[in-house]
Amino acid sequence: MAGPRTISLDAMGGDEGPAVVVPGAAIALDRHPDVQFLLFGDQARIAPHLEQHPPLVERSRIVHTDAVVEMQDKPSQAVRRGRSSSMWLSLDAVRKGEADFMVSAGNTGALMAMARLVLTTMPGIERPAIAGLWPTVSGTCIVLDLGANVGATARQLADFALMGAAMARAVLQIERPRVGLLNIGVEEIKGVEEVRQAHAWLKENDLPIDYVGFIEGDQIGQGTVDVVVVEGFAGNIALKTAEGTAKQMAVWVREALTSSVAAQLGALLASTGLRGLKERMDPRRRNGGPFLGLNGIAIKSHGGTDAFGFASAIEVGYDMARSNVLERLAADLEALHGKLGQPEAAGGSS
Amino acid sequence: MAGPRTISLDAMGGDEGPAVVVPGAAIALDRHPDVQFLLFGDQARIAPHLEQHPPLVERSRIVHTDAVVEMQDKPSQAVRRGRSSSMWLSLDAVRKGEADFMVSAGNTGALMAMARLVLTTMPGIERPAIAGLWPTVSGTCIVLDLGANVGATARQLADFALMGAAMARAVLQIERPRVGLLNIGVEEIKGVEEVRQAHAWLKENDLPIDYVGFIEGDQIGQGTVDVVVVEGFAGNIALKTAEGTAKQMAVWVREALTSSVAAQLGALLASTGLRGLKERMDPRRRNGGPFLGLNGIAIKSHGGTDAFGFASAIEVGYDMARSNVLERLAADLEALHGKLGQPEAAGGSS
Repeated sequence: MAGPRTISLDAMGGDEGPAVVVPGAAIALDRHPDVQFLLFGDQARIAPHLEQHPPLVERSRIVHTDAVVEMQDKPSQAVRRGRSSSMWLSLDAVRKGEADFMVSAGNTGALMAMARLVLTTMPGIERPAIAGLWPTVSGTCIVLDLGANVGATARQLADFALMGAAMARAVLQIERPRVGLLNIGVEEIKGVEEVRQAHAWLKENDLPIDYVGFIEGDQIGQGTVDVVVVEGFAGNIALKTAEGTAKQMAVWVREALTSSVAAQLGALLASTGLRGLKERMDPRRRNGGPFLGLNGIAIKSHGGTDAFGFASAIEVGYDMARSNVLERLAADLEALHGKLGQPEAAGGSS
Repeated sequence: MAGPRTISLDAMGGDEGPAVVVPGAAIALDRHPDVQFLLFGDQARIAPHLEQHPPLVERSRIVHTDAVVEMQDKPSQAVRRGRSSSMWLSLDAVRKGEADFMVSAGNTGALMAMARLVLTTMPGIERPAIAGLWPTVSGTCIVLDLGANVGATARQLADFALMGAAMARAVLQIERPRVGLLNIGVEEIKGVEEVRQAHAWLKENDLPIDYVGFIEGDQIGQGTVDVVVVEGFAGNIALKTAEGTAKQMAVWVREALTSSVAAQLGALLASTGLRGLKERMDPRRRNGGPFLGLNGIAIKSHGGTDAFGFASAIEVGYDMARSNVLERLAADLEALHGKLGQPEAAGGSS
């Protein structure tokens, strides 16, 4: 299978802009020597970083623009004023077929709004979802929606299942991923009609996934499923809470291993194992969340990541572009929508 | 301040029933030699456990009943058929003033439904919330709602702030607790009107709390606030996800410290520090979630905990009963409701 050829990067996005994006691209080029890059942004700020990576110079073209979407811009402002911004232009390169996918570490809300406008959503999809890689005891799973939407109708949850499965095929190389619907374990309480309806649909219909039913929050990290489906408010809170808990544990482990001279000596002896632990916990290895449900591949990188983390986000886009995941996903969604009929008038809580 | 005198226990609740409840009571009696216990349940099953704790025999009375609420009973079934159950009777002892508070490790949904019927809700409160203790880097905070309700109106979220503050005063001994409203960091997305309205109310009104505004999931474990307010679906998912992440980290730490002979030796040297780590992570120390918003104190213990964990749940009830927390809370809620006026007709998503 031939890999993607051209990668479009918003060189100005993220806390550090080109200081992270350019060395990130250099790492990606090391892994995939065939690719080339379109770097959108301020020529004068990009060039000095690019010069430090001679092989990358050969494979890159800077497309200059002065306009930048700032981290604090509101999405509506960004969309109105930012049509010549590095973010918009890097998305537009995907739309025009000049690039196979794009990556930006910029303002999430603005990227989401622009991606919808530039790439447009797939038929029957109103808003894309943000998916992410989540470390488990046994490997990695995919969780969506991580906060692109608040609330989700049953249809949207069912769509998320297929979107997540598409990403699992591309990124985890699992052809028929296990999919679970995140729920809470309390019986007979009102308000989760959407989750129950989605559960019924995913169970009844013959879909290209292995639907395992409801799961609870503690099963995400156990690796019970490959794809976890949840509406975006709870999904975002779950993600942030897990990140916070992991950090908290890291602080406690560090305190435990520096609590005495004996403990420090012990940590020294165990240093190889502890390095492995640190690597497993490294969030940079799971950086890169695609917007799913768009007619084009757009990857959101964490704004505060470094070059290594940015390269991970490029890797997610590379895997998705290589797998021609969008064509298959569009067909799967069309088949599902055919089975479910017209959407309900109400449109749920989002 | 005189402590509570009589504690009502559902001796049949939880995975192990009296085998956990009775030794749990023995630990609590050790801590508070003045208290006495009403043990509701099957005399023949309770007595053998009780006999193993002579000091407890002196301070306990078994109130026999054959009827038990099973873990798989639906709340509506439990309420219809379970009026002579150990769960119902142990709640009723609180209503009748025969006990200062009750603890059950039984079926959450059933306990919730029965508690509403037996103890009734405070004026202006439709459904109670479940609160819980959450370990932070620097200590402990309180999170609610952990799943008693799905969705919450702005009014309910504002109520939760006062309920959590009441628990913080009683259990954490913080007179004016810092309160945060859990939200997600994406701007300009629809669907969190309730959260925004609650934010405005908590900010504008002069309340007996230190309202700090929105927080995100990763701040819970950082100890940014003493009380975290969130609707129950996301709250339950956050709790379970944090538990899952902590377990996952524990597995990884164990693997890191057994990955080689050197690592094992290192772990041995660091064993004192690691024991401290294990203690900090021990979920039994934070067991015990009160239902808040009721005219009486009912504490839910985890169904799978052991005697030490059950004693922690008794401790939460003890602290709350000692502080006369309900009278103050009812007054605070009344004052808030007076400021907010009549509830909206719609009633939000729950």
